Amino acid sequence: MEQILYGKPVAEFIDQKTLSFLNSLPKDKEKVHITAITVGDNPASLLYVSRKKDKAVELGINFHWEKLNSDISQIDLNKVIAKLSENTDGLIVQLPLPDHLDVVETINQIPVELDVDGLTTQNLGMLFSDDPIILPATTQAVLEMLSFYNIDTFDKNIVIAGRSRLVSAPLARVLSSKQFNANVTVIHSKTSNQKEFVLNSDIFISAIGKAKMFDHSYFKPGCIVIDIGISNVDGKTYGDIDPSNLDNIAKYRAPYPGGVGPITVSALFYNLTKLVS
Amino acid sequence: MEQILYGKPVAEFIDQKTLSFLNSLPKDKEKVHITAITVGDNPASLLYVSRKKDKAVELGINFHWEKLNSDISQIDLNKVIAKLSENTDGLIVQLPLPDHLDVVETINQIPVELDVDGLTTQNLGMLFSDDPIILPATTQAVLEMLSFYNIDTFDKNIVIAGRSRLVSAPLARVLSSKQFNANVTVIHSKTSNQKEFVLNSDIFISAIGKAKMFDHSYFKPGCIVIDIGISNVDGKTYGDIDPSNLDNIAKYRAPYPGGVGPITVSALFYNLTKLVS
Repeated sequence: MEQILYGKPVAEFIDQKTLSFLNSLPKDKEKVHITAITVGDNPASLLYVSRKKDKAVELGINFHWEKLNSDISQIDLNKVIAKLSENTDGLIVQLPLPDHLDVVETINQIPVELDVDGLTTQNLGMLFSDDPIILPATTQAVLEMLSFYNIDTFDKNIVIAGRSRLVSAPLARVLSSKQFNANVTVIHSKTSNQKEFVLNSDIFISAIGKAKMFDHSYFKPGCIVIDIGISNVDGKTYGDIDPSNLDNIAKYRAPYPGGVGPITVSALFYNLTKLVS
Repeated sequence: MEQILYGKPVAEFIDQKTLSFLNSLPKDKEKVHITAITVGDNPASLLYVSRKKDKAVELGINFHWEKLNSDISQIDLNKVIAKLSENTDGLIVQLPLPDHLDVVETINQIPVELDVDGLTTQNLGMLFSDDPIILPATTQAVLEMLSFYNIDTFDKNIVIAGRSRLVSAPLARVLSSKQFNANVTVIHSKTSNQKEFVLNSDIFISAIGKAKMFDHSYFKPGCIVIDIGISNVDGKTYGDIDPSNLDNIAKYRAPYPGGVGPITVSALFYNLTKLVS
């Protein structure tokens, strides 16, 4: 019988670390402050930012939400980021952005010392060292989950489905580093023998975003399955893993929803404490 | 019978591209200029830089070699890099450095627009995008070799032994990107079932630096083997691959010496043309 890896207790554990840090700050110091920028009214973006706002309030962190019109130019957006960077401890630009804006250019306007999401080119480049400071929030969230549930990655075969700049590629690099010592394989949409790779994995992490793409026939007994893909079909959201008949195969499974998702917001504020200290 | 992938014709091909570019520059423009810094008298460092100097002369590029004492402080080294950056088109700090100097801090003193080696944190971070401009010279060299010999990476199983910041980790990321579409696995010294991984590879690239570590028993018929490891035993240098009895197994093999090595210097000057244009 598979054990479900819920994100909520992991998030609570991280929040406790964050609160301890915040309580250790001198009482006369100004309250820690984080800024989020949304461009337009993409419902997913608004939902994500409102979750971050709720968490900030819960943690006693000042939260400024800058809502910009969807037709803002790249130049004006860059100016807004520069201006808001002057008076905050951390800055988020919520993705996705409207198509006329360049994601990488936009993210790289964030000063590295305010980059709580860990997605500037400079912070990603640091992942090639063995001692990066800020990890992308989703990478940090997956690692926190593995650590919380005592899942060792040493010499484990980890297969990651996906190779995105924001999620899968950084995670793959970090898991293969000297800190985590996994044997990491990255597969993707052009991989024809996906099943062969996944069947050989001790830990499988999917971040493809294709509903129920991997069913029970992909997994070997005793494996660990972590679902971080999200996709939308006919107004319903799905993860990448079809959990039917998986409970007698997997040892652990982090589901969507309720798995890594709730941890990412907490990971973000944990990153913030590292930037402030 | 395996076909040997020699680096020399690949290097000549790249040099031709570099020369065409240089010849296309306006005649009244100042000669392109590259600067190399060595610290101390590590014989390998001096050898590498003298090869780069020879290539620069051959290509008609001005070459300045700044030789620094091995006891220079980090602060003074950083100052020298800043000063030399003012009047050059490309700057190399030859590795290894004496132990008291920090490699990453030193490399990151190089302005990104002069980083012909592609090893600053900023340039490494760009590898997470799908359109990096400057690749680390060894990564570029391996890709040039594959392209020259018409070796397709699409949906191929590529196993890379090693996970270094300078060589293997960047190569792994680039080969799994949308440009190359390989199914990449990174193995390392903590991987217990190395043979199982290597036996499953269509292309195996080794950058471990352990003499003759992989013998014929590691390879499947028809595979492609690329040796970029270098190690020193009793004053003799070796690659990672033991080529005995491999010629009836491998389809292609890039040997050490004579394989990727000669291409890296040419790749460096090709990077320089991208920075100048």
